Parts: sequence; structure tokens; C-alpha cells
Amino acid sequence: MSATSRLQEISKKNDSVICVGLDLDRKKVPTDMAGSIKGLYDFAVSIIEATSDIVAAYKPNLAFFEELGGEGLSLLEKIISRVPDENLVIADAKRGDIGNTAAHYAAAVFERLKADWVTLNPYMGYDSIRPFLEHKEKGAFVLCLTSNPGSRDFQFLHVLNKPIFMFVAEKVAYWNKEDNLGLVVGATHAGQLADIRQAAGNLPILIPGVGAQGGSLEEAVLAGTDNFKQPILVNVSRSVLYASSEKDYAAAARAEVERLNGIVNDLRQKKKDENK
Amino acid sequence: MSATSRLQEISKKNDSVICVGLDLDRKKVPTDMAGSIKGLYDFAVSIIEATSDIVAAYKPNLAFFEELGGEGLSLLEKIISRVPDENLVIADAKRGDIGNTAAHYAAAVFERLKADWVTLNPYMGYDSIRPFLEHKEKGAFVLCLTSNPGSRDFQFLHVLNKPIFMFVAEKVAYWNKEDNLGLVVGATHAGQLADIRQAAGNLPILIPGVGAQGGSLEEAVLAGTDNFKQPILVNVSRSVLYASSEKDYAAAARAEVERLNGIVNDLRQKKKDENK
Repeated sequence: MSATSRLQEISKKNDSVICVGLDLDRKKVPTDMAGSIKGLYDFAVSIIEATSDIVAAYKPNLAFFEELGGEGLSLLEKIISRVPDENLVIADAKRGDIGNTAAHYAAAVFERLKADWVTLNPYMGYDSIRPFLEHKEKGAFVLCLTSNPGSRDFQFLHVLNKPIFMFVAEKVAYWNKEDNLGLVVGATHAGQLADIRQAAGNLPILIPGVGAQGGSLEEAVLAGTDNFKQPILVNVSRSVLYASSEKDYAAAARAEVERLNGIVNDLRQKKKDENK
Repeated sequence: MSATSRLQEISKKNDSVICVGLDLDRKKVPTDMAGSIKGLYDFAVSIIEATSDIVAAYKPNLAFFEELGGEGLSLLEKIISRVPDENLVIADAKRGDIGNTAAHYAAAVFERLKADWVTLNPYMGYDSIRPFLEHKEKGAFVLCLTSNPGSRDFQFLHVLNKPIFMFVAEKVAYWNKEDNLGLVVGATHAGQLADIRQAAGNLPILIPGVGAQGGSLEEAVLAGTDNFKQPILVNVSRSVLYASSEKDYAAAARAEVERLNGIVNDLRQKKKDENK
């Protein structure tokens, strides 16, 4: 089964487009767990156990683990091993390097960490992406248009009448021979997201930037899926992980995912009713 | 002292623009050392001890260590601790993420690994760079024009008459308020390197791609320094680390660095004589 088919399968089974960002920020994890590697592990596993049947994926950002050194990377390996096989793990690494080096990064995320997908940076071009694609059952989301203010610096530069991020979308769609590529497009750019969806065909789109960064979930879902026709994942991190700073954090995380799933399902139903 | 001043100081003291890329490829390290973490550590330390007085910097690429998991990252920390204080350590990480996450990557490379410089990817713009600059005594080389074939995919796209990589060079020069930014420009593009040097003012340029990737050392040095007026580092990895596959690998590495330093110094003398 291709990486994208697997993504669609778990999204359908769990009736969810939600990806939970596992960004273990020691300043926000409940204080009695934040001080030790074991506490962080227990926190992450509780979140996973409380939500795995109602989300599609988990997305640990490697920065939060690398900050803890070798122990942090080992912690991430252990946390990933606790994600049920049917859920996806997206290693949010945003890597990009020349071919020879990229092959080593691919081994690091796919063989060592055992992630299913990775995020990559397009700046260095095709040979920085290709070694990841050689792991045919694994997938790669390539940064296209990001949710942060700095996206204005280079991504919006126009070549003739087309912004750079559209060149990225078109190239990635062209490179997608094995049904294992996708795009990252921030929810803070809902208008552009619709344009990118048209250029991207049926590539899955990973959408961060809902919630703390200010993007609208409804707009992101409608534009990203082209009215529920194409695959997306919507990433949420802080609003789920830190839904409660008390002992009930896992139940609160589940309640927040259920609320988000409810919004998406209500929207789907509304669109169906409109089309009757 | 600013990060760039420190770079110029060690380059002058050791009379070298050479940066040795510590890419510990287990397929190329002498076979009796390649199989264990201790063997890799001993190999790297021998290379450092054999060359630290005749090179400016060491540049470990994080991919080769992450591939080994938590143990690999701890190994890198230990290797870095063996680099003399006056030499620079450049963490070749090519990171780039939104501000909040970038702050954690900055902590990972500067506080945990204790690197002096890092390499960054410009695609996500200023707020992905800024958290690194807040470590004022540390420096960041931003990818501008890379040495690989994929550099053609996006870096050479032209906005009006100017390629994207020139926009990157100009923005990075503009952001350089603390004398702690530089550029990465591949030696395989010697013509463009001269143009970038003009746009970059006195930013230091890190130049990979000499040797195995086909770039000419002489051309890179002349274009990168604008005839020995501006600071550069030239990275060499395989030709130094694997100069010999026998027990004499450390002495062979030193001999190769001496040969490269000799080429640069002969070139400098030749330019001086021409200008008399």
C-alpha cells in the first residue's frame, strides 16, 4: 500500500483529519513530569493512549528532542514505538541536504526512528528529496507555503506572475511517481491554500497553523480538501497537549480532539446538505 | 568578540581557510574502527589532533550522527568537546523552522552540542533565523547557492532579472546586525560566487563542493575572497578524512590539509606579486 493510501485509510477509519503535534515543551508539560526524561515519556504515552483511536497521525518535532541531546533522541525513539501501527508518525524534521547526506537523514528518520513520513525543505531541489522517496512505503511532506511571518521573505517572490511556492507545489506534484509525496501549507494562508490544492492534484496536504498561530480550521479544511474531495491532515499541538495543566491533561486532550473532529464532521455534513 | 571576528582570527593564526567536514561515514572509516561508537570517536579525535593547528574549523554534519540514534548525538557532543577552543565548530544542520521551534534548535546546537556556528535554510524567512542570532557570540551560515544539481530547481529561478539566491544573499547581508551571519555558496558555481561576494559585502562565506563534488579550490578562493580581501572557509571532507584507509589515516589527513593550505598560500603570493 502506498504511503498516501495508508494516510487515507487511517483518516477514514478514525474519522479524523487531525494530526497531534508532539512538541514536548518542558515549560508547558505538567510540572511534576517536565523535569525528567521518564516524566516526558509518560506524558507523551498518556496523550497517545488517550487519542490514538480518534486521530490520524502524530507529528513529533525533532527540535524539542534534540535540545535534550542523545537522551532526547532515544526518548523520541521510545515514544514512537508506543504509537499504534495503524496511526502515522510524521517526523517533523524539515531536513534538506545534498543526496549523499540526505540518504543518511532518511536512514535516521525512517530506519532509526521508524517514522512513516517526514517533513522536508525544498530549497536544495530534487536530489535532496529523492533519497527519502527511495523508501517507497514511506512518505515526505515538502514545505510549500509556511504559516509564519517569514514566509513573506522568499516564498512569495514572484517569477513572472507565479509565486515561488506555486513552483514548489508543481514540482512536487511532478516528482510524485510513487504516491508518497505531500505538501506543507500553513492554515494562515487560506486563499493560497485553495490555489495550491488546484496545482497539487491529489497530493495530501499537511496543514499546521490552526489555533495558536491564528488559522481557521473551517477555512483550512474546505480549501485544503477542495470540499472534502482530497486528503489533508490538520496539525494541532499546543491546544491538545496542554488543554489542561492539571492531572486530567489526557482526558482534556481527548475532549479537544473530539471537539475538532466534530467541527470537521459538521462542516462535511453541511456541505453534503448544500449539494443535495 | 563577534562570531565573524573569531573566524577571521583563527584563520589568520593557523594560516588556513580550511574547514574539515567531520562526516563519519561508516563505509569509509578504517574497518576496525567503523563498527563501534568508540572506534568512530577515536577516529574523529585522531583527525582533530592531527590537524587542529593547521585548519580553521570543523564541520560535523548532523545526519551522520542522527543515523546512529541517541548514541550518535551523544558521540557528537563528545567529539565537539575535543576540538580546541580556538578552532570553530560548525554544526552542519541546515535547520529552518518557525520561531518558537527554531529557538529549540538553537538551544540544541549552541547550548547542548556547544557548536560555534550552525548552517540554516532560508526558505522560511527571517523569523526562522532570528532565534539563532539571539545567541550573539554564535554565528549562522545561511544556504544561498548550493553545490548540488538540485540547486537548479528553485535557487536559479529569476525574479525580474535576479535569481532567488541573490535575494537570499542581500537579505542575509541586511539581517547581519551583530556580525554573526554568513552564507553557504557551493564551489561548483564559481561565476555566481563572485556575484554573491559583491552583494554580500564582508559576510563570511562557507564554500563546500571542492574535491569530490568537482569545484576548483583556486577559483573558489579567488571569487569567494574577492582576491583575498574577505573572509571564507573552504570545506573539505572526504579527501581529508579518508586520505588513507590504512593506519596512517591521521598523518595522511594532515598531509592533505597541508597540500590544500599550500595551494591557497601560493595563490595569495601570486596575487601579491601581480599587484606589485
